[in-house]
Amino acid sequence: MQNFIFENPTKIIFGQGQIKRIGQETARFGKKVLLVHGQGSIKKNGVYDQVISSLSESQLSVVEFPGVRSNPVLSHAMLGIETAKREGVEVILAVGGGSVIDTAKTIAAGVGAEHDVWDFFTFRKTIQTALPVLTVVTVSASASEMNAAAVMTREEGRQKYSIRSLFIQPKVSILDPTVLFSLDRAYSAYSAVDAVTHMLEGYFNNMEPNPSPLQDGMVEGLMKTIMGATETILQNPEDYDARANMMWAATLAFNGLTSAGMGQIALPVHMIEHSLSALYDVAHGAGLSIVLPGWMKSQLPGKAGRFAKLGREVFGVTTLNDEEAALAGIDRLKKWFSLIGSPVSLGAAQIPAQDIEKIAENAAALAQVWGLKAYTKEVIAEVLKLCV
Amino acid sequence: MQNFIFENPTKIIFGQGQIKRIGQETARFGKKVLLVHGQGSIKKNGVYDQVISSLSESQLSVVEFPGVRSNPVLSHAMLGIETAKREGVEVILAVGGGSVIDTAKTIAAGVGAEHDVWDFFTFRKTIQTALPVLTVVTVSASASEMNAAAVMTREEGRQKYSIRSLFIQPKVSILDPTVLFSLDRAYSAYSAVDAVTHMLEGYFNNMEPNPSPLQDGMVEGLMKTIMGATETILQNPEDYDARANMMWAATLAFNGLTSAGMGQIALPVHMIEHSLSALYDVAHGAGLSIVLPGWMKSQLPGKAGRFAKLGREVFGVTTLNDEEAALAGIDRLKKWFSLIGSPVSLGAAQIPAQDIEKIAENAAALAQVWGLKAYTKEVIAEVLKLCV
Repeated sequence: MQNFIFENPTKIIFGQGQIKRIGQETARFGKKVLLVHGQGSIKKNGVYDQVISSLSESQLSVVEFPGVRSNPVLSHAMLGIETAKREGVEVILAVGGGSVIDTAKTIAAGVGAEHDVWDFFTFRKTIQTALPVLTVVTVSASASEMNAAAVMTREEGRQKYSIRSLFIQPKVSILDPTVLFSLDRAYSAYSAVDAVTHMLEGYFNNMEPNPSPLQDGMVEGLMKTIMGATETILQNPEDYDARANMMWAATLAFNGLTSAGMGQIALPVHMIEHSLSALYDVAHGAGLSIVLPGWMKSQLPGKAGRFAKLGREVFGVTTLNDEEAALAGIDRLKKWFSLIGSPVSLGAAQIPAQDIEKIAENAAALAQVWGLKAYTKEVIAEVLKLCV
Repeated sequence: MQNFIFENPTKIIFGQGQIKRIGQETARFGKKVLLVHGQGSIKKNGVYDQVISSLSESQLSVVEFPGVRSNPVLSHAMLGIETAKREGVEVILAVGGGSVIDTAKTIAAGVGAEHDVWDFFTFRKTIQTALPVLTVVTVSASASEMNAAAVMTREEGRQKYSIRSLFIQPKVSILDPTVLFSLDRAYSAYSAVDAVTHMLEGYFNNMEPNPSPLQDGMVEGLMKTIMGATETILQNPEDYDARANMMWAATLAFNGLTSAGMGQIALPVHMIEHSLSALYDVAHGAGLSIVLPGWMKSQLPGKAGRFAKLGREVFGVTTLNDEEAALAGIDRLKKWFSLIGSPVSLGAAQIPAQDIEKIAENAAALAQVWGLKAYTKEVIAEVLKLCV
């Protein structure tokens, strides 16, 4: 096991009927709240009313900042920073999924900065302070409700970059699985792909010949949980236990727990996917199910043992030969993505193969920022050719 | 899944060579430190010197409070409270295992209380404040380094009771697996029994017909990790990866993670064991390996499905019939405790069967405090008869 620091102070309040606590939790951090939300789904599913009622019961003053869309953009977050500064808000409440929460985190960091908030994303500046962030989760996939990261796309240059700081990690997150009942089939599937990929990028990194059984066991357990729950959800979107298992598993999948001790985790699949969603606005989960199987094929020579373990432990592959088990593992994973309705080729997302060079160039720029030197434009293009 | 709140703010610094950070971490909380430790093992294995050197580098003033023994006693903790008050310490550093950490927590709570600290253990009073606690772990079993609980024995009446409060939860814990290299065979085994039992009390509670696959998967994964690591450790006490896997797994086993969502967890096995270690001063882990298999037998009618799942998932039992698989599971668990050298009968720990009434009476008093009404003196005596 590698040395690590694990620190995750977010208070999770989990379960049906818990949104009513958001007022009293928010009031611990301030009186004036910036309420960040998205495209209006929370007004349809009743979450908005629950939140407003709880905030008003705690006599909080609310400034609304709606309009976040998926693959959130910097210009909108900068509008949020302006609003937060002008109104003098003391605390930020995100009600939504990863895009809304990441916008809230970016605003929280930006309010305390004298410079362009994008400097945090290019690592030119380090976050030194932020407004407190709380969340009410309406889509479970990003784990942003219990981690220190935020991802944002800057329209100029179509750069989808990220930040990470304990200052922007949510103080409190409320997870009510009934909120997911209205999440459609597509996003229910993409959420599963996202959560699974978060873990697998670490799992494939848990290096042989000495992978830690502890992290392997957690990832395999959570992955089987997510797969089983997602299959149930697609049959019955209002199955409480399935939604609850998916919701908590997705949080644990990327809150630092499964990767602690695995060493520095590279996220090449996320990195390449960021270019797909930055350039084509495909859903992040859909992009991941396109890139992951192709990336695995590209890594087969060095990682057959790891892919074989996935095949055996998660998909019940029984082949003794490692390379065969690895190929079977990749194939079974890809088939499972298809089964739940997530695309597994560029074509399925209407991304033309002739764009590969352009995508690779975009991703290679992020590879430089993230320090993934092996991922040149050429290497990334080779991976993308395996995703056609 | 049941509703839950999960909040675990302890910062974990994990790995070889990390003890040198304790000075700077402690300095964040105060200048004058009460250094709580045990019977001198840290002077033999070099941990004491590392800690003192780091504290002095950070220019902290140190008041020593050594002498904690396993199954720590209230009178000693009260001496610590006096010392802490007299010396005006600002922060408490525990260097040791669960007994040392629990003593430090009790002192931390006691310093801020005007009344008898035991009132916290009988739930007559609630902890409202405490000095900050940090830890350097030298025995991995209790998970006290990352949870809010402390257990203490009051000599008068031989009561072994517990407290739980976020105020006493460690701010920072340093876990260096090399420190465990000098832990002897017996305590290495007892540590495994303790960690496994912490999880199983929840696992058996993860109620049918609807057990949560998420928690089941985590417990099964961590349990297999602990078992594999312990077998390696008994062969080679200086196997770094095995010690590291055991160390982190033991922390995760009782830091609230595996039980979150399982509902209110009763700890009847711990409760009955508390009476064994309070009355006979057997090691806590040794007491648990005596009580757990007997308790399982007593619960067979209602919990066959759960015991069968343990047998199948952890021990590879293949019997289709639930009751047979449950019996096989109990048998395999008991055999594994024996294999690693932990006692599985009262006799093996020189506890005479004719004392059962006395033990049951002691445990029944704690059952009242813990609200486990089903555990009358008679019921507990029946369980103990299955441990002969």
